Amino acid sequence: MKTIGNETYKLCEELFPINRSITGDGLRETLAIIKRELPRIKIHEIPSGTKCFDWTIPKEWNLREAYILDPEGNKIVDFKENNLHVVGYSVSIDKSLSLSELNRHLYSLAKFPDAIPYITSYYGETWGFCLPHSQREQLKDGKYKVYIDSNLKDGSLTYAELLIKGKCEQEIFLSTYVCHPSMANDNLSGPSLITYLAKYIQKIKNRRYSYRIIFIPETIGSIMYLSKNIEHLKKYVVAGFNVTCVGDNNNYSYLPSRKGKTLADKVALHVLKHLVHNIKEYSFLDRGSDERQYNYPGVDLPVCSVMRTKYGEFDEYHTSLDNLAYISPDGLNGSYEVYRKIIESIENNYTYMLNELCEPQLGKRGLYPTVSTKKTHAIVNNMMNFLVYCDGKLDLVEIAEKVKTPIWDLYDIANGLISNKLIKIVN
Amino acid sequence: MKTIGNETYKLCEELFPINRSITGDGLRETLAIIKRELPRIKIHEIPSGTKCFDWTIPKEWNLREAYILDPEGNKIVDFKENNLHVVGYSVSIDKSLSLSELNRHLYSLAKFPDAIPYITSYYGETWGFCLPHSQREQLKDGKYKVYIDSNLKDGSLTYAELLIKGKCEQEIFLSTYVCHPSMANDNLSGPSLITYLAKYIQKIKNRRYSYRIIFIPETIGSIMYLSKNIEHLKKYVVAGFNVTCVGDNNNYSYLPSRKGKTLADKVALHVLKHLVHNIKEYSFLDRGSDERQYNYPGVDLPVCSVMRTKYGEFDEYHTSLDNLAYISPDGLNGSYEVYRKIIESIENNYTYMLNELCEPQLGKRGLYPTVSTKKTHAIVNNMMNFLVYCDGKLDLVEIAEKVKTPIWDLYDIANGLISNKLIKIVN
Amino acid sequence: MKTIGNETYKLCEELFPINRSITGDGLRETLAIIKRELPRIKIHEIPSGTKCFDWTIPKEWNLREAYILDPEGNKIVDFKENNLHVVGYSVSIDKSLSLSELNRHLYSLAKFPDAIPYITSYYGETWGFCLPHSQREQLKDGKYKVYIDSNLKDGSLTYAELLIKGKCEQEIFLSTYVCHPSMANDNLSGPSLITYLAKYIQKIKNRRYSYRIIFIPETIGSIMYLSKNIEHLKKYVVAGFNVTCVGDNNNYSYLPSRKGKTLADKVALHVLKHLVHNIKEYSFLDRGSDERQYNYPGVDLPVCSVMRTKYGEFDEYHTSLDNLAYISPDGLNGSYEVYRKIIESIENNYTYMLNELCEPQLGKRGLYPTVSTKKTHAIVNNMMNFLVYCDGKLDLVEIAEKVKTPIWDLYDIANGLISNKLIKIVN
Repeated sequence: MKTIGNETYKLCEELFPINRSITGDGLRETLAIIKRELPRIKIHEIPSGTKCFDWTIPKEWNLREAYILDPEGNKIVDFKENNLHVVGYSVSIDKSLSLSELNRHLYSLAKFPDAIPYITSYYGETWGFCLPHSQREQLKDGKYKVYIDSNLKDGSLTYAELLIKGKCEQEIFLSTYVCHPSMANDNLSGPSLITYLAKYIQKIKNRRYSYRIIFIPETIGSIMYLSKNIEHLKKYVVAGFNVTCVGDNNNYSYLPSRKGKTLADKVALHVLKHLVHNIKEYSFLDRGSDERQYNYPGVDLPVCSVMRTKYGEFDEYHTSLDNLAYISPDGLNGSYEVYRKIIESIENNYTYMLNELCEPQLGKRGLYPTVSTKKTHAIVNNMMNFLVYCDGKLDLVEIAEKVKTPIWDLYDIANGLISNKLIKIVN
Repeated sequence: MKTIGNETYKLCEELFPINRSITGDGLRETLAIIKRELPRIKIHEIPSGTKCFDWTIPKEWNLREAYILDPEGNKIVDFKENNLHVVGYSVSIDKSLSLSELNRHLYSLAKFPDAIPYITSYYGETWGFCLPHSQREQLKDGKYKVYIDSNLKDGSLTYAELLIKGKCEQEIFLSTYVCHPSMANDNLSGPSLITYLAKYIQKIKNRRYSYRIIFIPETIGSIMYLSKNIEHLKKYVVAGFNVTCVGDNNNYSYLPSRKGKTLADKVALHVLKHLVHNIKEYSFLDRGSDERQYNYPGVDLPVCSVMRTKYGEFDEYHTSLDNLAYISPDGLNGSYEVYRKIIESIENNYTYMLNELCEPQLGKRGLYPTVSTKKTHAIVNNMMNFLVYCDGKLDLVEIAEKVKTPIWDLYDIANGLISNKLIKIVN
Repeated sequence: MKTIGNETYKLCEELFPINRSITGDGLRETLAIIKRELPRIKIHEIPSGTKCFDWTIPKEWNLREAYILDPEGNKIVDFKENNLHVVGYSVSIDKSLSLSELNRHLYSLAKFPDAIPYITSYYGETWGFCLPHSQREQLKDGKYKVYIDSNLKDGSLTYAELLIKGKCEQEIFLSTYVCHPSMANDNLSGPSLITYLAKYIQKIKNRRYSYRIIFIPETIGSIMYLSKNIEHLKKYVVAGFNVTCVGDNNNYSYLPSRKGKTLADKVALHVLKHLVHNIKEYSFLDRGSDERQYNYPGVDLPVCSVMRTKYGEFDEYHTSLDNLAYISPDGLNGSYEVYRKIIESIENNYTYMLNELCEPQLGKRGLYPTVSTKKTHAIVNNMMNFLVYCDGKLDLVEIAEKVKTPIWDLYDIANGLISNKLIKIVN
């Protein structure tokens, strides 16, 4: 069946084998595939050495080959078999060394003996290999050979940006990162979902808001992007979401903005509350992705995060077990529905004002049943509850909260009352 | 025994048989009886066709005769036996018709087979009869005759208003409706209680506030009254109450204003909390009477409601079972006491300021026992607690809440301290 | 072992036998001993008759001799044996009288038959004796002789003040009272603790705040002090504490300022929460000492109180059982630690602002481990949590609350980040 979940999952499958990092050809290849899906996306290259606040765009890293030979000359660890085998940003090495020397450059997880851990060292020049702890425990004394053929030199950091214009200049900001090699929930689920969400947004008729969507390497990417665009973002962004870990089929998670109760927070919580069950609400202290930068004091963008199982909260996190089996079309489909509802809610989130004092006479407009009984009383109450909060201050999601109903149950009521000239949009 | 409850109950008895509606001679007759009790009340007539915001004063309706004859010519339903038998605002009809045709104009309640339901159709011209479901089920096929001799033509809507002036121009607003035929809790308990409350208010010595009391038909009456007086009301009303359903002897109910925490809300809750037990606190979403209009955005009057069992929350509601047996002198007496305490509390609700910094020396004024022991310590603490909140900002009911004591326990303390020139009234 | 608790306890022992009151030579003797410990303290005398807001400095009271002789001439109650035997401010008397006449001037506690109660009558001229209820019940009919040789005449009220200057003019205000005769928790624990706390404050290097410390008679002393210094105190005091009942070894108590959430309240609660267990949080309604004056409307000083068992809450309170056995070096030592931590927290309670937007690159400054694993992630998070609240508005104690860590765990982090020029102090 061709669902959005299935389509999104296929994109994850296609992107999975590529060896991504925060720079390099794997990142370019990934963004090229996304551009095939979203042709109007723009790819940017930021040269190594560019200053971004306290940071500097690092050298570009590309890896051609990497393996370990055991004392008998068997290739026991090979980058060709799994991208995670090499510590990200490892420098070239070609050396024989004892097991104890080798061990200082090996990473494994005793607690998850079959998993290859994901390790990087972007800003300190070193090298290393990652392997399952079960394999590591089998290694015998002797001379090992390590070989890494990598390229760490001035180049550029690549990112992609898509601006989908709406009727007004105010923007909804969607950010996702694309720098992890061969891991599914963290992180291919994010960019894949955003790709299909962008397709949906492009098709919204009479789109109210503009949408700014970026695919960046984590941390350095958001800092770089902020350093170039902060004034614009602070002026135009009314709500934003950092999209990651949206592929598994477990409960939903919500991580608030630093200040909380922004439009993004209000809508995210409202949609989650009315659409799904068993939400896990995190504290801003639990943050760990690009919302760290977007919410920094002085940056202060209204960015929160809606996820399935949050990064760091599942055993498979940052290991080779976060693979295509950990995510599912159903999981992705559920996340898509939540984000689609969030966008729909924001598009419809107007502030209304009454055109007349006191309740309108619904009867003369055919909005009220001609015979008043206990039952019709209840039906009309719903419309009346909406009307009594159209004070020109509360927005629709706030009214929905007051009235204790999903915001989408108010769209028709609001539009009907506008047609009847009983209310008007003030914002 | 001549209690207020007994007097109020007798007034309900006298008013019960009259056939009231939102206009017409039954309404006039009702207000004339109230004027006998409150001679200074003014009766107003608003012509049919008068525009009131989104509404128009309807034609005046009067009903002379209405009955149904069964196929054998027996008068099986007769308006003379119960006002509720005829749908309010029914047009004239004189017609023979089959049972199935007749059934489209009959109203009954399967769940309460002995009750005649109360049905109206003010703004759509139609006709109908209401009867017990048990009776309806006995009707046999055949030709029935329906006869209604009513008069629906330009006339006027009648209401009554009493202004009791006090020392200041600020007003306490009491609203009650008088448009229901032959029902006791909803609605004769309200206007009867207000009548005796007005007698009490007229006798308050050195009355601080002015009291504006209106007896109106529900909904159209409050909208009409607001359309004529809104500027005045917004300027002068500091607290208001919509008084209804105050006759039964069950628990008390509180329905807040839309904004909540107005003077009316604060005092109502405080009095209820300290005077009675088992209060049911409703949400503003549960509103259903004229507080809907008073709290409308842009109207924004500080009006809440204190009731016994709220309209819609008792089985007898809007049926012939809401009769004089459903209410009682005791029930009315309890409500009277609550409203009397509310008025007394508002009259006494001053804001005080200290005349001197630091605690006063109570001893030299005879306010402190000469020998200090553990016990006298506790007694003086009460006065001290009051004093320490006389900051010129908190009013007396707010201080009473802070000090966790009924406001009436602070009247003597406040007056004693004023006599001793230790505090002064600032508002 | 020479702990602060032991030293403080010894000072209590030395002060215990002295017969203090709100004026007189016992008070002078007490302050002279404290001056021996804190030589820079200044002793002030305020003449009887001086007006202080609503109050007047009373006559000075000194007591030379006081006893009761039973019908057989036995001295059954003698002031020389316990200061509490005489009602404070008793006038001279030399009289024979019957037991029933005598009884009108006797005070005892049926509930605590072995305790001599503490009774005073500062502002009404009278006389009386206090004795154990068990002894009183033994008294037989007959002629008793009462003898009091006291001196109540114009003199002065004595108090002591120590100003320890810091780098800024803003002040921390410490108040304790010294007017109770021969009682330990209430009241010698307070002035003794403050004495050793003052020694600590004098030794703080680069002391930020100035400290104003007063030793006064309760109530009249604080009112007198406010009447002389209120403008200065309102301008400069940023946090204050009324120190009393800090000698027993039971749970800690916290009594808030009237407005709550002042710097004093925030720090007191934070320190208690992170340093000790089982805090009893009182309401401002439970106040009973000089914080009554400091928090009076119009005075509005940010003064709260941290105690062990609060006055009035232990059976021994205001009796001869509140003796040196009721307090302990351990109890005093714990209170000292709490107050020392409070002062340290206030000294360190800066408001910080970031020097750069977005998270800093900790790696290039050696603040971030070169290899990123799950574990290092958690360590760095602590620093990051601090940084993300350095918004130039939250102070350190507020950040500590947000980050859910004791404020003292943030001192090194803050200082390290200042050294690295990543943050600056703005307040």
